Amino acid sequence: MTHLSEDERTLLDAARDARTRAYTPYSGFPVGAAVEVDDGRLYSGANIENAAYPQTVCAERVAIFKAVSEGARRLRRVAVVSESGASPCGGCRSVMAEFGDPDTEVLISDLDGHTRRTTLGVLLPDAFEMAARGPTLSSE
Amino acid sequence: MTHLSEDERTLLDAARDARTRAYTPYSGFPVGAAVEVDDGRLYSGANIENAAYPQTVCAERVAIFKAVSEGARRLRRVAVVSESGASPCGGCRSVMAEFGDPDTEVLISDLDGHTRRTTLGVLLPDAFEMAARGPTLSSE
Amino acid sequence: MTHLSEDERTLLDAARDARTRAYTPYSGFPVGAAVEVDDGRLYSGANIENAAYPQTVCAERVAIFKAVSEGARRLRRVAVVSESGASPCGGCRSVMAEFGDPDTEVLISDLDGHTRRTTLGVLLPDAFEMAARGPTLSSE
Amino acid sequence: MTHLSEDERTLLDAARDARTRAYTPYSGFPVGAAVEVDDGRLYSGANIENAAYPQTVCAERVAIFKAVSEGARRLRRVAVVSESGASPCGGCRSVMAEFGDPDTEVLISDLDGHTRRTTLGVLLPDAFEMAARGPTLSSE
Repeated sequence: MTHLSEDERTLLDAARDARTRAYTPYSGFPVGAAVEVDDGRLYSGANIENAAYPQTVCAERVAIFKAVSEGARRLRRVAVVSESGASPCGGCRSVMAEFGDPDTEVLISDLDGHTRRTTLGVLLPDAFEMAARGPTLSSE
Repeated sequence: MTHLSEDERTLLDAARDARTRAYTPYSGFPVGAAVEVDDGRLYSGANIENAAYPQTVCAERVAIFKAVSEGARRLRRVAVVSESGASPCGGCRSVMAEFGDPDTEVLISDLDGHTRRTTLGVLLPDAFEMAARGPTLSSE
Repeated sequence: MTHLSEDERTLLDAARDARTRAYTPYSGFPVGAAVEVDDGRLYSGANIENAAYPQTVCAERVAIFKAVSEGARRLRRVAVVSESGASPCGGCRSVMAEFGDPDTEVLISDLDGHTRRTTLGVLLPDAFEMAARGPTLSSE
Repeated sequence: MTHLSEDERTLLDAARDARTRAYTPYSGFPVGAAVEVDDGRLYSGANIENAAYPQTVCAERVAIFKAVSEGARRLRRVAVVSESGASPCGGCRSVMAEFGDPDTEVLISDLDGHTRRTTLGVLLPDAFEMAARGPTLSSE
């Protein structure tokens, strides 16, 4: 069982709470997320679906978009909570990469509290110079 | 010149302020947005780009995602501000449609304060039953 | 009842046929589309879903992406077919706008053959200078 | 230097050729891609940008969307070519995961012909059950 620090438990609680406000009429699969930024502030989010699926947004992105739109630019830690403890999709990993680095911590938890701790470098290898060096290195 | 109510001016000010926190290293085109939801609360957002462009998000969506992830479900009014007073992209109009209706007001303003007032029904005709009646009517 | 030309019927048939190859394990709502480009060639597509919904793509976009990646740059006509005859989402209207103009014809049909004929200018008003004048006018 | 098989060189050539048809007025960074599916057929694509960046699509997705909309369902190998030899974004890795498996080969090449060979399992760890077991395991 993963031992969690006080800060990690607080972030997971914020993600679990945000999950209750998810808007998921199409999948029925609510997800919550929360991020801690470099000055210690927390921001949370939930997935928000759309009748036209490409306009759906994931929980992780909502939490990051809130943080960045409030002025934050660096992620220290990301938490995501869902019934099955699913891991972030690739699109979310790219959004994390824009504001994180290989050491950015990612916590993934299910509703029973089983939590995995990993890093963005593990989840999205071979991506970081891209964000650091700008669009000429993105393989869009 | 469009005459604006006090509430409309407050919303446009929130959008203009949010614009200053946009993250636009790739386009250099910051946009701000703000929404008023049915209980009167305001939420704002800015565009947040990504080295991989499909993972970019528009200002309007960030403001709506904030509102919805905080529990709001109905939009009363949307404001968007950019240098040129550009109008929302189609993807944002679909996100508005999920939480708005044809009468939802949309204010579009440039940095000189020239403002147009329109509605979601004008900007995205032939879309509303889709959101109301669920995914079986979306032409995804 | 909408009277259709030979070219229009051919395009709708291509969209209807493409719909049979949709990949829709999550929504169960297959859609087909086809486009006619300025040199008269036809390209078709279907919606392709993803376990992470934001990575889903609509039928209209697949048809347009095929055309553009084969060298086409201007759309003359778009057809979309689904069980309910749903109209294109806003995101797809923006993709059409990049390669169309207000007069670009859009045909929307259900499986019983009820067809509506409209234009991109009707479906996405106030969008065209955006595409024509480039990113500084997009309200991303 | 990576030794390439005849099939690999053919796929990289298709990606390199597709790159010449990219539509990149906003980034100026063309990318080409090609996929080989389980029956041996090849499909290629290029990135196609949009004035509203979220509606942009990457080269890898265009190639996969073509293949799937023509009836293919399993990817055997993916090739991507750009000036800098950048690796696929996270969103594209998720699209690959829907139709690939951890052993799906990914070739990444720059314009000088420097090529890296990797797998989807390396590029997107902890993602595959998600696609296999459906939306209830996606952390959307």
